[in-house]
Amino acid sequence: MRQVLTPQALTAAAFAPFGELIEARPEPLLINEGTTERHHALAAVTVGEGEGIINLFRAQPRSLPMRITMMERHPLGSQAFLPTDDSPYLVLVCLGDKEPDPSTLALFIAQGVGVNYRAGCWHHPLLALDTVSDFWVVDRRGTGNNLEEVWFDPDTIIELPDPRR
Amino acid sequence: MRQVLTPQALTAAAFAPFGELIEARPEPLLINEGTTERHHALAAVTVGEGEGIINLFRAQPRSLPMRITMMERHPLGSQAFLPTDDSPYLVLVCLGDKEPDPSTLALFIAQGVGVNYRAGCWHHPLLALDTVSDFWVVDRRGTGNNLEEVWFDPDTIIELPDPRR
Repeated sequence: MRQVLTPQALTAAAFAPFGELIEARPEPLLINEGTTERHHALAAVTVGEGEGIINLFRAQPRSLPMRITMMERHPLGSQAFLPTDDSPYLVLVCLGDKEPDPSTLALFIAQGVGVNYRAGCWHHPLLALDTVSDFWVVDRRGTGNNLEEVWFDPDTIIELPDPRR
Repeated sequence: MRQVLTPQALTAAAFAPFGELIEARPEPLLINEGTTERHHALAAVTVGEGEGIINLFRAQPRSLPMRITMMERHPLGSQAFLPTDDSPYLVLVCLGDKEPDPSTLALFIAQGVGVNYRAGCWHHPLLALDTVSDFWVVDRRGTGNNLEEVWFDPDTIIELPDPRR
């Protein structure tokens, strides 16, 4: 099987099967004597019996085209990626119960917005483009195995071109 | 009483009485086949019986000098401010059990780094400088009163000049 990934528009609805799109909303609350808009509760930090933590991820840019050989997930907690600048990055997710189902792969180009993978959402490791990119990451620590990695069958050829070309 | 605030250097040690400074550390973990540095667990999201949420705060720049008339705190959970760019902003905190103690006010200039106020830390509402500034904010929702605001006695004159001049 050979598959070439093409991006779809990143909207809250399109991303809903995988988690939450974290972006400004049309109707924020005004707080701090009117000096600040609060775009409230754009995503939930779910950690079960664990604890939410804030990390910094510093990602090297990927060289495209590349082949997608694996996906991972965190079964015990959500994981949010919050960009620190307007550099574009790729979000590659799929469905699947015990294993990632490559026929459901969904590719998005994100820029200036965050994503929150729901617990158990299959996703590819961070795919920065163009430049070294920093992300604030909110995820979970605690007991239990919170990382599953699955490599695709070698006959499953999944190609990721540069989706902006 | 008249007090003019001057900034001190923003280090993890100086900020420790108030919470956690969220910035890159010298020894990150390498993940994602070596493509990503993980600066792990820079801050903890504490929410008690509540739930952690991710919000976007869009702050208008303040006009300085200004007078500091009040402080607030969130007794039931931490609150993290994670900048989305390198614009400087001010962090103004103080100690105090039932009320903020103005003699303990500490002013910091932050740029490219985040702060996590521990539950119950007295802090001033967001003080952006220069430009409209977006922050990812990680805090708490749930039952109970998680906002206390206290205005200083009118005889307590606290002046905030532009600390960069």
